[in-house]
Amino acid sequence: MPAYWIKCVVFVALGIMATLPLKAAELAITSPDGAIVLTVKDDGGHATYEISHDGNEAIRPSRLGILFRDHHGFEGDLAISDHATASHDATWEQPWGERRLVRDHHNELAVTFAAQKGPAREITVRFRVFDTGVGLRYELEEQEAFQGHIAITDELTQFAIANDADAWWTPSRQFNRYEYIYRKGQAGTVDDAHTPVTFRRQNGVHISIHEAALVDYSAMSLLALRPGDFEAQLRAGSDGIKVHTSAPFKSPWRTIQIAPDAVGLINSDIILNLNEPNKLGDVSWVEPGKYVGVWWEMHIRDRTWGNDGIHGANNADVIRHIDFAAKHGFNGVLVEGWNTGWDGDWFNNGELFSFTETYPDFDLPMLSQYAADKGVRLIGHHETSGNVANYEAQMEEAFDLYQSHGIREVKTGYVADAGDIVRYDENGIKQYEWHDSQFMVGHHLRVLEEAAKRRISINAHEPVKDTGLRRTYPNWMTREGARGMEFNAWGTPPNPTDHISILAYTRMLSGPMDFTPGIFDLRPNEKPPLREDMQRGDPSNRPQTTLAKQLALYVVLYSPLQMAADLPENYEARMDAFQFIKDVEADWEESVAIAGEVGEYVAIARKGRAGGEWFLGAVTDEESRALDLPLTFLEDGKTYTAQVYRDGDDAHWDTNPYDYVIEEIEVMSGGTLPVKLASSGGVAVRFIEK
Amino acid sequence: MPAYWIKCVVFVALGIMATLPLKAAELAITSPDGAIVLTVKDDGGHATYEISHDGNEAIRPSRLGILFRDHHGFEGDLAISDHATASHDATWEQPWGERRLVRDHHNELAVTFAAQKGPAREITVRFRVFDTGVGLRYELEEQEAFQGHIAITDELTQFAIANDADAWWTPSRQFNRYEYIYRKGQAGTVDDAHTPVTFRRQNGVHISIHEAALVDYSAMSLLALRPGDFEAQLRAGSDGIKVHTSAPFKSPWRTIQIAPDAVGLINSDIILNLNEPNKLGDVSWVEPGKYVGVWWEMHIRDRTWGNDGIHGANNADVIRHIDFAAKHGFNGVLVEGWNTGWDGDWFNNGELFSFTETYPDFDLPMLSQYAADKGVRLIGHHETSGNVANYEAQMEEAFDLYQSHGIREVKTGYVADAGDIVRYDENGIKQYEWHDSQFMVGHHLRVLEEAAKRRISINAHEPVKDTGLRRTYPNWMTREGARGMEFNAWGTPPNPTDHISILAYTRMLSGPMDFTPGIFDLRPNEKPPLREDMQRGDPSNRPQTTLAKQLALYVVLYSPLQMAADLPENYEARMDAFQFIKDVEADWEESVAIAGEVGEYVAIARKGRAGGEWFLGAVTDEESRALDLPLTFLEDGKTYTAQVYRDGDDAHWDTNPYDYVIEEIEVMSGGTLPVKLASSGGVAVRFIEK
Repeated sequence: MPAYWIKCVVFVALGIMATLPLKAAELAITSPDGAIVLTVKDDGGHATYEISHDGNEAIRPSRLGILFRDHHGFEGDLAISDHATASHDATWEQPWGERRLVRDHHNELAVTFAAQKGPAREITVRFRVFDTGVGLRYELEEQEAFQGHIAITDELTQFAIANDADAWWTPSRQFNRYEYIYRKGQAGTVDDAHTPVTFRRQNGVHISIHEAALVDYSAMSLLALRPGDFEAQLRAGSDGIKVHTSAPFKSPWRTIQIAPDAVGLINSDIILNLNEPNKLGDVSWVEPGKYVGVWWEMHIRDRTWGNDGIHGANNADVIRHIDFAAKHGFNGVLVEGWNTGWDGDWFNNGELFSFTETYPDFDLPMLSQYAADKGVRLIGHHETSGNVANYEAQMEEAFDLYQSHGIREVKTGYVADAGDIVRYDENGIKQYEWHDSQFMVGHHLRVLEEAAKRRISINAHEPVKDTGLRRTYPNWMTREGARGMEFNAWGTPPNPTDHISILAYTRMLSGPMDFTPGIFDLRPNEKPPLREDMQRGDPSNRPQTTLAKQLALYVVLYSPLQMAADLPENYEARMDAFQFIKDVEADWEESVAIAGEVGEYVAIARKGRAGGEWFLGAVTDEESRALDLPLTFLEDGKTYTAQVYRDGDDAHWDTNPYDYVIEEIEVMSGGTLPVKLASSGGVAVRFIEK
Repeated sequence: MPAYWIKCVVFVALGIMATLPLKAAELAITSPDGAIVLTVKDDGGHATYEISHDGNEAIRPSRLGILFRDHHGFEGDLAISDHATASHDATWEQPWGERRLVRDHHNELAVTFAAQKGPAREITVRFRVFDTGVGLRYELEEQEAFQGHIAITDELTQFAIANDADAWWTPSRQFNRYEYIYRKGQAGTVDDAHTPVTFRRQNGVHISIHEAALVDYSAMSLLALRPGDFEAQLRAGSDGIKVHTSAPFKSPWRTIQIAPDAVGLINSDIILNLNEPNKLGDVSWVEPGKYVGVWWEMHIRDRTWGNDGIHGANNADVIRHIDFAAKHGFNGVLVEGWNTGWDGDWFNNGELFSFTETYPDFDLPMLSQYAADKGVRLIGHHETSGNVANYEAQMEEAFDLYQSHGIREVKTGYVADAGDIVRYDENGIKQYEWHDSQFMVGHHLRVLEEAAKRRISINAHEPVKDTGLRRTYPNWMTREGARGMEFNAWGTPPNPTDHISILAYTRMLSGPMDFTPGIFDLRPNEKPPLREDMQRGDPSNRPQTTLAKQLALYVVLYSPLQMAADLPENYEARMDAFQFIKDVEADWEESVAIAGEVGEYVAIARKGRAGGEWFLGAVTDEESRALDLPLTFLEDGKTYTAQVYRDGDDAHWDTNPYDYVIEEIEVMSGGTLPVKLASSGGVAVRFIEK
């Protein structure tokens, strides 16, 4: 059976009308395993594609196209004028990641559509079909009709799913960037959605729409055209233009993951495979690891970022964190609130921030030396509050400063309402941009490049969404881009019990997340406020999980920088459970999602890259579950001691979150591990080869 | 008590920082009755307003502002530099309408904000405070900083309602223009909404946000900034710019209706009062009235628009309708499908339509003469399928043709997905616009002006929303702009049982609607299709009302052109009920909403302008209700014979829609009329003075 097949159907029209297309062409290509069939047509002058999976409809016929402000677009009156095919099977190595070796196996079809009316012009749509889904992008070559500047006003790519598919999504046009409780409902109720957005068709096939390699373009969200049918919606810049570009250009890849089951979505490398290889050369200075930090104490309103008497980033407290990190094998200490600017209305005025001036009680040279002496590094922090103008003006000097003190990782922050990123244009006019605008896509790369020059890696909070650029820029290690742990400190409401088991099948498909797991203090939030201006959340503001589920997060939610987010004293109170956080790795040789359903539960196993040990994490939503997890990932014929950190028999996230059991059992490859997860519980396992 | 009061609070800052504003100003104004207090501030350099009603918060502090592409905007660093006040109390006369005499009684406050940074510039926000709400608009005068073309990129007007208010709305960014089933939920669940959008705060105060006098601007919808807090969202043109303009300009009025109860929203003339007076001079040629037409038979798939053997607009059928109209006192006969273009894929290709070429079986001269001989006029029809380029090219000739045959009213149509209006720009590039874009706002006025030259009035379907322009252009008689009756023929699902009792408090606040009421055939839709390509809806496709509710619609849903939409034979089968449609007027001396709750029920009384008789209509949702309707609108001390068309005791929209009773009872002014409405039932009453 050939790796791909092409059929070209030529209809000779009977000369009824000169304006009828003389032929309608149809091209098709399959995935390497043959299960996915992608068909491309130009029926009626429209460029369309459709996708089937195992013979069943996956994406119904969906339009392709782009419109421009100053140029004739690609929308109607199109005919396929050319096509080319290719096959590709290669394996490449990640410097760090969920797995070291990534196989890129796909068939490719590039279809050129030529306009049949107006100026001569053509555009190519390149499709790559993997066993786990499809990528497609637009490629506009240099040509007579596209001279000079090009303003893209609309992308017409459609994704016709099905009204009655289940959907999990966040809205794309509200203030809170990507930080929402996921919505659940029929696809027909989705108005607009950030990607990745995940669907489950009635036949059980799972589909996730996202994009890969978002460079010099604005981000795509989905807008419902009709119930269950979506169109790409590019984020407009402040001038209303979606993308400013010129020919030749390539759009980001639009990705359509397709899997027969939920975990199939996780076990796909499409996003990474559609990104360009590492551009940075030697990146041995990018170091995955685990860290603690001066952070949670501000979110629970025990300390402040600003210098007002209870300043968190003071020398004594930082030293305490460095000591704790060194003692327990963490290689990083994040310090927020070290720089001046936090005392005024920084949320509305990012110009207050200096990225080089420290508060008087934070001695950067002393602390970085103290850390170095203990084998630990400080992790830097740049909160911009969305004033990118102010940040870019100081950025180089700021990274110089950090580099001079041996800092290898910087957490950036863009706390600003969506659409409120501050930019000054070439006329000095203050403009407001979205976090996922072409401007911010460019800004993040400018940061990455300046950081890379100084061997610094980036952990971006309130970022643009991940589209796999860590492959090309391996110093973009992790980011936020969803509701993280801090919502449990003050969110209204806190993250719900199914949050993690939705994230695993949605946000996490895009790449690593600095969720900052590991909160051990699970008591209702009932401490009185320290000061009137520092109101804590309400009693519900605590992680709505068991303690065992907090441990499981270290395996379930992949990040090459993994925080132990709670206060040292809370870990010291439960050193037996803390042992798992000390043991677990943050960089992996292999990863495999082994069981789960979107929004219900998920179980993932990962093999540590340094130690070679397998770890497993599983979490559930509100429903307690008994699962028999298959241990097929373990090496054939070997036996292991499984160190199991599980919910106790009476555990319950709300009433009994601390009921956990740590036990060792012997398991064999190919066997199963029976686990019982409490309501919003979890299990974390370390497998030691015997 | 003065009609308005102003306080100006001056804070003398103690010289701490030069950048602190030296003073913060606060201005306030009340409604004529004192219940509404509007306060305007420049705290922190932001222009804000807030509104209270009877001492309670109605609109929390909300920002004002505008941003531009090429000019420094009005957003921060603003200070109140000037203000002016005025009072106004006058009564003006409508040529036709819900009432003949309209009182415009308001206090006015114009506040000028001057920028404190960047180029010297100022903008004035004019507020008008009525007893039933507030209007505000931006006015930018000619000034040094605003020379030449101005591109508005964002309007920052906020409407901070309350997360927990009830809301009724339609989404603003999907394919179906304004034609949605209304959504109901907490304000915090509204992502984006077309206006009018109606809220009910927890204290029972009703608020409806809309706009008035939308001219040479794009339409405003609401986008949630945070749950329950909204910002004006202007519809972008195809080039991404919201509004192209130049100084001086005035924005449309943003309207905030406020009422202590639901019917208070209906009994407000804010929208009309904020529009400019009649610009057309003598409009005696604009004739309200009732009509029948060749229309419903196409929607139920008994006939077609195209010329394919079962063409509806054939001479014989039109004559039958003319005869029926003449016999029963209707003055118009709408004919759709009279012109060539319906036979191809007209939905996707509006260029197919000719607006002057008739189908061979439709003899326009003969039919218009036949109608004239019987005292009836044909009503013209221009379906553009959103190809405005094609329509504008033919428009003048098309109106000439109609004028030459004595046609006084034309129904226009823009059946195209939202965002798919076709325009060719100055470079011949095909661009796509929204129905509520600045381009379409302009197009509709071009149509009105061409029509007015020929003494033709317009009934626009798939229009831009109504903002009261009928005051300025009295030949803009009515329009669609919500889910009308045709959804009961083929909609999935058909209009729900609460549709009318939501429309009355939402869509109808904007102005008249050509809902096309009066369907008497309430049987489940179970006829076999005539042809394979003419599938009918499913059995649920029938009006989900009782017959009495169909009659009530003629009073509840105001339109100066009111259709009797069903087939003549269905009326002939129930002439006793049809008598109400024959008797009811379409133009009113006075109107008053007397009882109701949003989405539950509504009762409205209107006094005919020609005959001077009062009519009353009341409808309910799924819930049957017994109401005692106060008859305070009747003339003091008089008695009346009330001809009551009511649901029978066993009536139910689903199981027994035809159970109705017609009876005469004697009533007195100031008394009450006890009525019992069946599930999705209604009552229609004509009051004859004794």
